[in-house]
Amino acid sequence: MFESAELGHATPKAEYDKAVPALRAKLLDAQFDLLDLKRFAVVVLINGIDGAGKGETVNLLNEWMDPRHIEAWAFDAPSSEEAERPFMWRFWRALPPKGKIGVLFGNWYSEAIHARAHGDWKRARLEEHLDGIQRFEAMLVHEGVLLVKLWFHLSKAGQKARLKALEKNPKTRWRVTERDWKYYALYDRYRETAEHVLRHTSTGEAPWLIVDGSDERFRSLFVGRTLLDALRKRLDAEQRGWAVRQSAAPLPPLLDGRNLLNSLVLDQPLGKKEYGELLEEYQGRLALLCRSAAFRKHSLVLVFEGADAAGKGGAIRRVTAALDARQFRVHPVAAPTEEERAQPYLWRFWRNLPRQGKVAVFDRSWYGRVLVERVEGFCSEADWMRAYAEINDFEDQLIEAGAVVVKFWLAISADEQLARFKEREAEPHKRFKITAEDWRNREKADDYAKAVCDMVDRTSTERAPWTLVEADNKLYARIKILRTVCERLEAALS
Amino acid sequence: MFESAELGHATPKAEYDKAVPALRAKLLDAQFDLLDLKRFAVVVLINGIDGAGKGETVNLLNEWMDPRHIEAWAFDAPSSEEAERPFMWRFWRALPPKGKIGVLFGNWYSEAIHARAHGDWKRARLEEHLDGIQRFEAMLVHEGVLLVKLWFHLSKAGQKARLKALEKNPKTRWRVTERDWKYYALYDRYRETAEHVLRHTSTGEAPWLIVDGSDERFRSLFVGRTLLDALRKRLDAEQRGWAVRQSAAPLPPLLDGRNLLNSLVLDQPLGKKEYGELLEEYQGRLALLCRSAAFRKHSLVLVFEGADAAGKGGAIRRVTAALDARQFRVHPVAAPTEEERAQPYLWRFWRNLPRQGKVAVFDRSWYGRVLVERVEGFCSEADWMRAYAEINDFEDQLIEAGAVVVKFWLAISADEQLARFKEREAEPHKRFKITAEDWRNREKADDYAKAVCDMVDRTSTERAPWTLVEADNKLYARIKILRTVCERLEAALS
Repeated sequence: MFESAELGHATPKAEYDKAVPALRAKLLDAQFDLLDLKRFAVVVLINGIDGAGKGETVNLLNEWMDPRHIEAWAFDAPSSEEAERPFMWRFWRALPPKGKIGVLFGNWYSEAIHARAHGDWKRARLEEHLDGIQRFEAMLVHEGVLLVKLWFHLSKAGQKARLKALEKNPKTRWRVTERDWKYYALYDRYRETAEHVLRHTSTGEAPWLIVDGSDERFRSLFVGRTLLDALRKRLDAEQRGWAVRQSAAPLPPLLDGRNLLNSLVLDQPLGKKEYGELLEEYQGRLALLCRSAAFRKHSLVLVFEGADAAGKGGAIRRVTAALDARQFRVHPVAAPTEEERAQPYLWRFWRNLPRQGKVAVFDRSWYGRVLVERVEGFCSEADWMRAYAEINDFEDQLIEAGAVVVKFWLAISADEQLARFKEREAEPHKRFKITAEDWRNREKADDYAKAVCDMVDRTSTERAPWTLVEADNKLYARIKILRTVCERLEAALS
Repeated sequence: MFESAELGHATPKAEYDKAVPALRAKLLDAQFDLLDLKRFAVVVLINGIDGAGKGETVNLLNEWMDPRHIEAWAFDAPSSEEAERPFMWRFWRALPPKGKIGVLFGNWYSEAIHARAHGDWKRARLEEHLDGIQRFEAMLVHEGVLLVKLWFHLSKAGQKARLKALEKNPKTRWRVTERDWKYYALYDRYRETAEHVLRHTSTGEAPWLIVDGSDERFRSLFVGRTLLDALRKRLDAEQRGWAVRQSAAPLPPLLDGRNLLNSLVLDQPLGKKEYGELLEEYQGRLALLCRSAAFRKHSLVLVFEGADAAGKGGAIRRVTAALDARQFRVHPVAAPTEEERAQPYLWRFWRNLPRQGKVAVFDRSWYGRVLVERVEGFCSEADWMRAYAEINDFEDQLIEAGAVVVKFWLAISADEQLARFKEREAEPHKRFKITAEDWRNREKADDYAKAVCDMVDRTSTERAPWTLVEADNKLYARIKILRTVCERLEAALS
């Protein structure tokens, strides 16, 4: 979930100084159009890790925009007026009217995340609170509110570095208190709680957007652009007509071109000899794990996604070679059949779920919804936006029933892909593997990269994380995959 | 929630025999169109009280319709195949493809309601299960499934009468077991659980429809007509275009013309002398209750709805006369102001919630959404359909915060209303109270009656029930209102 926000994005000063005047002008224009149209209100939620720049961002928005039509609210412990009414009362009072923007800094999420991370709330209480939030936010969206939910993130190392830096400087030393270090000690629990909350309240219409809070300039541009894009998208949708409204969800902007995929070093070294030894080692470990008594209470669900010619098939064969033929099934996923199209899109995966003690390998999977279907426009934005939550929900059910879910994205460089395409075309027995469609897909590489990064950010969870596999060297890729499967199984069976 | 289903609806045999052939023909036509169009699947859920005719209805549907394109499923304890996969697996297997109808008799609700009523599940577990159901059903609806959820109801007396009748007849005596009487003893808990479950899973797109199960002929026509209407409405929506789909929710049919309002005896006797004595008694009780120490931890929210000239104002004055002027506020609710229209429709009620120790009287209320706005077309069907759940949620939050919520519908006959209109027109100081709009509203009396009955069925809950007030005799109405307020307060403060 926080993968993209931990890449260490940063914006150089010169670039920032150049971008800000235009951004501010556009934000003011959008704000004016919003006021002029008076058809919807904007609610911006500001949440996140301490020190990730929440307060600074609220100040910045106030500075950048017309302060008469944007209102920031901070909520502390409830007053007696507030405590004697339902919990949501004070938030209702803060709702902006149509045409205006409300920034809610400290809101219906704050207390719940804090209390759960500090162990004051039990899980059931949190769940009940989140349900109430979901109903409330669904109502806001139905009533036409544009909801922009921003989570300010800092990695654990980033958080520590920030506190150390403040302490080192005599002028800022006073800002670091014992409480800060106490909270820092709780970082992992806070992060885990946040991941749970964000995942369960990210909906198709009102998804969470994660802000990398480590660099002030990047963060400021990111928030400004997010707000601008969300406003423009919705204003356009309003002008085109009512029905478009609910598919005009806010999405994160592309800023510095850095993403999860292009941050990988795709060509990893591994020689044939070492490969042979490691292959034997991991296949042996996998075989033993899948034959163990403990595995009879579990199942294994492997998901292979990746660019064309990234080596999914070869990797799958190296995995299944370790297994008894009666124990596994490989499900190649192509365009849905007529029977499958007559059902909800997850149906064809549900019918192929393994029972306990079995292994199901999906060569492409339910993620097609947010990859090919998104990029090719086979479904609407509203459809693929809601799919993230539906997929998380689906995998949660698998895990609850004992499945170990391991998901791989095989990444190759454009050059390596081209070389493999040409090689396939040259070899008669591999020529069937390459079609005109493969060449077309290459032209949409940027769209696919965006879709892959969003997919990882929105569906990589503690219980079912994505593993990105550097696959320019096939040998390295296969070993990384086998090792990951072994480690995940060992963790689950121990 | 079960109010309309306990009126004792019944269909005479001659009427039934006349209606069935046409109904069957239309159902077959609709089924054929569904198959021909192949644009959506239909899932019918059959749940309810034992003995209310669930099994018989499933058999009937199979008999009435083309059995090749309708499939009924019953689910017992899970097989080992099923137990080793996620809970929802077997229901996914039973989903009908587009063009077909699946009848699920025993489904994702059955175990949860049973286990909770029998005390085997804790509340938190039920809530979690219901959340999963809500997500699943929302996904089905998004994927285009027409979901018809039928709850077969029998009153406690009806249930008892049924068991006694079976026992009395030597031919059917064997059908009544000890288990039946054990379940009967749990009737109240079962009903309470069912009410909770139905309320929390009735959504705008997939509401529950309550079937009065006491009379076989009425029940059969009701189910047949419900299914027919739902199919036709959705088929029409499909033909008009995609966007209409989600506002084509199934609604209960009007069959025998009997409803909650016309089942009331509106002219109840109460003389002036007795009225004076009772007025004094109840106003005194109310005054003491609102001044008691216990009330300082509560608040009182009174909702007055009713036809024009039903006597809301007079009744409100009799209530407030018992209170200290600093303790209460009356909120007359008319068309929303510009400020209010710029906010979600519940906003203007949230801002007027009383703090503890105070009384808020709403002369008309948030129910305008499902009354005047529905009937006059001021909001879409999708808007007022989702409002029931939003209003229940709103009142739940009030109650959680200590409020006692008492809701009155003042019912008068058309004749009495006409007499009062004429009287108002004749008296100069009352003339302002009667407008052209009031005369227009009279012409829509049937639409309003339907809206009122739906409102009571969907928002009368154990914690915030509606009280229907027979108001042709103003004196009787005022006393019934005062008595109800006193009793509800006494129950809450004790």
